[in-house]
Amino acid sequence: MLSKTDLNQSLDKKAYKETMEVLEKKLALLQQALWELKIPVVVVFEGWGASGKGTYIGRVVYPLDPRYFNVYTMDKVNEDMQMRPYLWSYWVNTPMAGRITIFDKSWHRIMLPAGCEKWRLKQAEINNFYNDVNAFEQQLTDSGALIIKLFLHIGQEEQRKRFRDLEKREDTAWRVDNSDWAQNEGYAQHLKDFEKMLKMTDTAENPWHIIEANDKKYATAKIYRTLIDRIETRIGAARFQKAAPAAETAADYEGVRILRQTPTDVTVEDEVYKKELDTYQKRMDILGHKLYAKRRSLVIVYEGWDAAGKGGNIKRLTEELDPRCYEVVPIGAPTPEELAHHYLWRFYRKLPKDGHIAIYDRSWYGRVLVERVEKLTPARDWRRAYTEINDMEANWSHHGIILLKFWLHIDREEQLARFKSRQDDPLKQYKITEEDWRNREKWDLYEDAVDEMLAETSKSHAPWTVVESNSKKYARLKVMRTVIDTLEEALR
Amino acid sequence: MLSKTDLNQSLDKKAYKETMEVLEKKLALLQQALWELKIPVVVVFEGWGASGKGTYIGRVVYPLDPRYFNVYTMDKVNEDMQMRPYLWSYWVNTPMAGRITIFDKSWHRIMLPAGCEKWRLKQAEINNFYNDVNAFEQQLTDSGALIIKLFLHIGQEEQRKRFRDLEKREDTAWRVDNSDWAQNEGYAQHLKDFEKMLKMTDTAENPWHIIEANDKKYATAKIYRTLIDRIETRIGAARFQKAAPAAETAADYEGVRILRQTPTDVTVEDEVYKKELDTYQKRMDILGHKLYAKRRSLVIVYEGWDAAGKGGNIKRLTEELDPRCYEVVPIGAPTPEELAHHYLWRFYRKLPKDGHIAIYDRSWYGRVLVERVEKLTPARDWRRAYTEINDMEANWSHHGIILLKFWLHIDREEQLARFKSRQDDPLKQYKITEEDWRNREKWDLYEDAVDEMLAETSKSHAPWTVVESNSKKYARLKVMRTVIDTLEEALR
Repeated sequence: MLSKTDLNQSLDKKAYKETMEVLEKKLALLQQALWELKIPVVVVFEGWGASGKGTYIGRVVYPLDPRYFNVYTMDKVNEDMQMRPYLWSYWVNTPMAGRITIFDKSWHRIMLPAGCEKWRLKQAEINNFYNDVNAFEQQLTDSGALIIKLFLHIGQEEQRKRFRDLEKREDTAWRVDNSDWAQNEGYAQHLKDFEKMLKMTDTAENPWHIIEANDKKYATAKIYRTLIDRIETRIGAARFQKAAPAAETAADYEGVRILRQTPTDVTVEDEVYKKELDTYQKRMDILGHKLYAKRRSLVIVYEGWDAAGKGGNIKRLTEELDPRCYEVVPIGAPTPEELAHHYLWRFYRKLPKDGHIAIYDRSWYGRVLVERVEKLTPARDWRRAYTEINDMEANWSHHGIILLKFWLHIDREEQLARFKSRQDDPLKQYKITEEDWRNREKWDLYEDAVDEMLAETSKSHAPWTVVESNSKKYARLKVMRTVIDTLEEALR
Repeated sequence: MLSKTDLNQSLDKKAYKETMEVLEKKLALLQQALWELKIPVVVVFEGWGASGKGTYIGRVVYPLDPRYFNVYTMDKVNEDMQMRPYLWSYWVNTPMAGRITIFDKSWHRIMLPAGCEKWRLKQAEINNFYNDVNAFEQQLTDSGALIIKLFLHIGQEEQRKRFRDLEKREDTAWRVDNSDWAQNEGYAQHLKDFEKMLKMTDTAENPWHIIEANDKKYATAKIYRTLIDRIETRIGAARFQKAAPAAETAADYEGVRILRQTPTDVTVEDEVYKKELDTYQKRMDILGHKLYAKRRSLVIVYEGWDAAGKGGNIKRLTEELDPRCYEVVPIGAPTPEELAHHYLWRFYRKLPKDGHIAIYDRSWYGRVLVERVEKLTPARDWRRAYTEINDMEANWSHHGIILLKFWLHIDREEQLARFKSRQDDPLKQYKITEEDWRNREKWDLYEDAVDEMLAETSKSHAPWTVVESNSKKYARLKVMRTVIDTLEEALR
């Protein structure tokens, strides 16, 4: 892509001025339209050293309303970033609906030799990241975001000249260092590396735009034209979509029936329970500290029927853990801010640092459970969620996160008995609501949703365990045993 | 406080077991009550090395529901913390209404010689921090939070024994380092330092509780009793308050009348405007980079009448700034999450890192403007806000933040003209709402509020500038000139 680019493009002063006046007005109007249509936009600036990324970002935001965009510089890898999966810092900075986020340098850098080094990766691991990165972009665009990727391209001669000019001036000399000169001297090799990076991440939906940047006027105008073009196309699509919403089809599940095959009558004797609980809790405490020492993190997901005993189960699991090592994250209905982001955004924000444990009490699986059954989300969106969630969990596991997911299973009769006993107990009445009774009526629909979820998203690096929970004690022991076995295997 | 403590307290096994059973149940019930009454609680664990902070935190959370508390370990000072005012990392981690936050080590440490060193402070600056810290606690309790400060006290002999025991075991040896032994050897001096720290921050409302911790059982029971005591008292107060809300009095302002004395007819010629705007913008660009180089940060507050031209003014100010250096923070009605915190919490979250600029489009002054006039907040609360805001801004300035506040002033006739022209322009109609007309009817009440705000909160380290804004061009130049003059003075 780069080597065949004609870098001798230019624009004279007069043509430039006239062009820009029109383009600036247009971009400002398009920003308003994006805001009204609630479309989030991500703009990526990549390119050679001294290709002018900072300058062009300044030029692009010039006509924009500063209250509705953000600029992030991503080349420094700080501790917070290093202790989480590679894409985390991009995820948490994705724009809200209607806003524009500009990244100065991007997630694609990990595919360059220097990026590998910074993140201490072996070349063989790069393929994982290639998949993760493309999945990330796909997820954002699937949720309605627009991604525009710009690569600023200059020639070797031009770069050398710019470095020299920078070095000459007292106030800019600090901006050129040895690694810059190394890039210039090894230009041919770096060109190949960039080419590969671009090729690996150039997709039909999210293509790279090469900006010939030897001539600043030409480059500015081309960047503007590219942005305007892509935004206009996206807005056109949004208006079209609004006119004709995709048809929704309710779907019956016809695959493997896991829940119906799960026995619910397994139980455990009180004496055995006490003894094992004590043993397991002590073991958990030790493993928690071992996780910390080895800087691995653990994510546990709790899902299950209403009244299945999630709260008490979590309580036993964490009881002997060092409270500085874990966090329980209760997931309720999303806030307006969360709704204005990709649905996975809020879970990224709570992702544990290396060495820590996060326990999600309900989770991103709400997308294919309550949102499906209650028709809060169109079928095409929750269907896509299986892939999105698998991609996300794969990405986490590439970073070394250990992931376990539990479905606490009780049968209908047990649920009814628990609902009734809650209603009769003044101390527990607050735990039972009209909504619980309504959910209960949709048992069959939920069973479809759970079975399909288990079939679609149980992976070796992120397995589901169905936990027989008619006996709360049995359920607690089973969860702890599963966690302990997994940790001992992973931390060996 | 410490030297006179009798450390020979203890509890036998049987008494301990019986006591704890009762206390654990009680604490669990109190947590529910806190949640129902929406009272946020902050618990601080301070004390000697090896006094058992981690262990006791584990014991305290044991009976608690893990979904409603958080534990933060605060002894490591990371880059993110260092680039913001000292109290920032505590502010952003204050609990939501009804939740409990436990800090392992606390904001009081800055008063110890080691804390001074970590934060590179001169001893003379400590007085600032003493004021800031007490103001922080006062603000939290004034807003309804409960703060419980525990100091774990052990003797020199006991500490030596514990360090030795830790060193003996392979898995705990790493926990003892040179600084620990230094504390033990210099016990007498450290005792004095701790005494001073405790004395400086022991207030009637937020007292320190000394926990004699040579005997673990005794200490555990005393910690539980202290927590239960304080929580019960706080809950009692909450129930009492609910029964008898404080009377509200509307207040007329009788102080200095700044707005009425502000001329609104000042203006600037087009040619002069163009020339000066260009000069100022170029200067702003240079000063922005200088701020970054000197790692100073700048906070600018915009307040003003509806239609006074805030948006356009901000636009001109930022137009030539490097977009990676600044962020514009539009402030609207608070979200439910924000409402569940102290009203200043959301502004702390957006505080710029050292070297950066944050421009707040409306701000924390909403507390004494719209919340006062619209009676959204009781008079005793917005009256207290003057002190709270002054304390906060003083704390920021102690960190080196440069703070400027602008009131964009237009007169009634000019506002009417602008409202009408907005209503007639299809492109600008969205900018004018029923609410704007309603606010306009309350002009006199707002004038009271603004004048009082200016009189109460204009300080040399955080001055208000009233900007004559009937001429938008004049207003833009005046803001930029003020910013430039301040920065040149501060960065000299």
